[in-house]
Amino acid sequence: MRAEILSIGTELLLGEIINTNTAFLGQELAALGIDCYFQTTVGDNPERLKSVFRQALSRADLILCTGGLGPTPDDLTTKTWADFFEAPLFFDESVFEQIKKLFQSRGLPMPDSNRKQAQRPKGALLLPNPVGSAPGMIWEVTDLCLERKIGTAERKFVLTFPGVPGELYAMWQGSALPFLTSLEETGRKVLLQRDLRFYGIGESAMAEKVADLLNLADPTVASYASRAECRLRLATKASTEQEALSKLDQLEKEIAGRFGELLYTSHHPNLESTVAELLREQKITIAIAESCTGGWLSQRLTEIPGSSQYTKLNLVTYSNQAKEKMLGVSSDILKSHGAVSAETAKAMAEGIRRLAQTDLGISITGIAGPEGGSAEKPVGLVYFGIATNSDTKTYRQIWRNQSRSDIRWKATQEALNLIRLELLFDRMGIKFHLPI
Amino acid sequence: MRAEILSIGTELLLGEIINTNTAFLGQELAALGIDCYFQTTVGDNPERLKSVFRQALSRADLILCTGGLGPTPDDLTTKTWADFFEAPLFFDESVFEQIKKLFQSRGLPMPDSNRKQAQRPKGALLLPNPVGSAPGMIWEVTDLCLERKIGTAERKFVLTFPGVPGELYAMWQGSALPFLTSLEETGRKVLLQRDLRFYGIGESAMAEKVADLLNLADPTVASYASRAECRLRLATKASTEQEALSKLDQLEKEIAGRFGELLYTSHHPNLESTVAELLREQKITIAIAESCTGGWLSQRLTEIPGSSQYTKLNLVTYSNQAKEKMLGVSSDILKSHGAVSAETAKAMAEGIRRLAQTDLGISITGIAGPEGGSAEKPVGLVYFGIATNSDTKTYRQIWRNQSRSDIRWKATQEALNLIRLELLFDRMGIKFHLPI
Repeated sequence: MRAEILSIGTELLLGEIINTNTAFLGQELAALGIDCYFQTTVGDNPERLKSVFRQALSRADLILCTGGLGPTPDDLTTKTWADFFEAPLFFDESVFEQIKKLFQSRGLPMPDSNRKQAQRPKGALLLPNPVGSAPGMIWEVTDLCLERKIGTAERKFVLTFPGVPGELYAMWQGSALPFLTSLEETGRKVLLQRDLRFYGIGESAMAEKVADLLNLADPTVASYASRAECRLRLATKASTEQEALSKLDQLEKEIAGRFGELLYTSHHPNLESTVAELLREQKITIAIAESCTGGWLSQRLTEIPGSSQYTKLNLVTYSNQAKEKMLGVSSDILKSHGAVSAETAKAMAEGIRRLAQTDLGISITGIAGPEGGSAEKPVGLVYFGIATNSDTKTYRQIWRNQSRSDIRWKATQEALNLIRLELLFDRMGIKFHLPI
Repeated sequence: MRAEILSIGTELLLGEIINTNTAFLGQELAALGIDCYFQTTVGDNPERLKSVFRQALSRADLILCTGGLGPTPDDLTTKTWADFFEAPLFFDESVFEQIKKLFQSRGLPMPDSNRKQAQRPKGALLLPNPVGSAPGMIWEVTDLCLERKIGTAERKFVLTFPGVPGELYAMWQGSALPFLTSLEETGRKVLLQRDLRFYGIGESAMAEKVADLLNLADPTVASYASRAECRLRLATKASTEQEALSKLDQLEKEIAGRFGELLYTSHHPNLESTVAELLREQKITIAIAESCTGGWLSQRLTEIPGSSQYTKLNLVTYSNQAKEKMLGVSSDILKSHGAVSAETAKAMAEGIRRLAQTDLGISITGIAGPEGGSAEKPVGLVYFGIATNSDTKTYRQIWRNQSRSDIRWKATQEALNLIRLELLFDRMGIKFHLPI
């Protein structure tokens, strides 16, 4: 079975809202193992709607159509599908009763225009809307319609949903998904996906290391880049979940062997949740002293539910005075090496660890720009410190020609990765020495 | 001129990322007065790409194409356009030099696959990418190409951009927009836009207050909602910049009169830069003590260049112990009222102000969830404190049934707005009392 997604609404073309429905439906179709090759967005115009309907039916067997089911005159989806197939509209009394009840339950009078939402083309089944006044339809397009309109005679389906995301989700879960899984074509296979996430390697270098795997037919492997990290998505179809899992496990093992510690997770969505799990598992507490990142590292590590297990106190010591007074960085160090130096990073990490009485003390000090750089210490230069009960390591990185926000973000990525490596290697007795 | 937007990438079809580029381009086209009737998303497949190219050229004069410009084998946009028009690709040495420099400046080796990004079809102009390795092209499609491929002979343009939003924005502002406004069709007039940003009012309530203005022909007014704020975009075309400015000024004045302090800026991109400007103008220093927001408020206020002028020291006091030890919140208060209370918020704000020796002390303490709520103190309850040299105000807000991340974000929005109101009203001698 092949699907196509149509998004209907002039507000989408004008960019007044971001279309999140296509991403939702795209993920759901992928999970069902149904291919989808095109998504089209079109405004509230009958002729352009019909041109899009005709094209979608010529390329796909399953048309998922969102938007245009409201009560106002510019909501044209139901009527235009009926016109397209020359099917009469009928008024569904029981749907109308439900719409009236919905308004009553909200203590609102029902505008007359909502009568329109109880109309449906003859032959179409109801796709009920448990959370709003706009029901959709499930229409198994008959051979007759198809022969007349698009010149084929396969079994095809049109499903319509409102554009409001919450209503779409509820209708998808409640009715559309059970309907689709009941169709013979989609029920046979399990589709599983897994994201492997990498830090410390660019997308092209990552892709080169798995060049032989990128054209596999099953499991498939695709590469993606995000902000200062990248990932490989593995996907496979199998008769059982067990079989699919085993195929993914085997491929993950192969890939993991090629990347070592550059692969940071196969089951977390980001670095902060990966680090949070390590901290919780090892019962390690952490305290952070940030300068140029201004609290971003702390923000990321506390975004994870349950972060109070490892977080007690973090500091943003922006001024030299704060570094001295709060963290005990000596004025000698600040004078002779400057606030952006390995020496200051070391003293900050040790100072915050002592102050917060935690297992680990982390520091970040750098120049995020756009001002404040020099030939010796350019914008983008950042120092990191990691203090433990046995030693303090420091690390240096430069991100040149980048925006303030990117330098700050990348510094938090780097810091999270340094914490990860510390937790993975040093605590396992494998000495891990950061280069300076 | 009529435009069509093509989004290229299998990851979009699979719903792996939400397509924000179409909304951005949709808004930009609308502001230019260029109609756009269709948006199409297609995967990384040459035949399907060509079918979409053919269709777009048959319906529109301006094709804006995002995605598929990366270095990996599945990035096919440039090559497929060249194939489509049977134009040879050539290797642009100067572009290649720039890509090499980009990698050098980041201290990274350039993978061989990036050579590909220096290729361009013969006849296409460069659309430079100031922030990444993937340049695009501006191609004025020749009559010959068009006659052969789509059977028309009008003047048509294809512009390609990478899929990474930041790169698209930079290339749009830097090259595409100047190019489009230079074309005769759009270049006759000066177009100016202005965003008025609101906090403390929902989009529908905002739109109702300006219902009479939403259908104006010139300047146009459109309403948008973002995360915990909303905005009105004013746009006008005029013969001179002076005339356009004067029309926008007049309309802004009219709207400002209807909203009072709910309108927070007409020239800043967000609340943090609005607050930063007030702090700098008034030479006020600020210190923040955060609990549930974990450093996010500090992160936002230090994202603004020059934030060291008002920031010295901020604290994330996550544990009760840290609130006591660092901020001097008494154990009596913590025991009798709890960490999430007006009393604790007050003591935290006063404590951080004293510790950092600043003009203002700000505190946030609340329950971000998903755990930790009770009937009396539900998830979403957040207290704020603002300490000055004369008094300390506290404020309470509840965001029910929302995610941890949304509660944390909204708490930072609320805090920024409270700081704004404090700076606007209290320091101008107008007493501003926060409700508790």
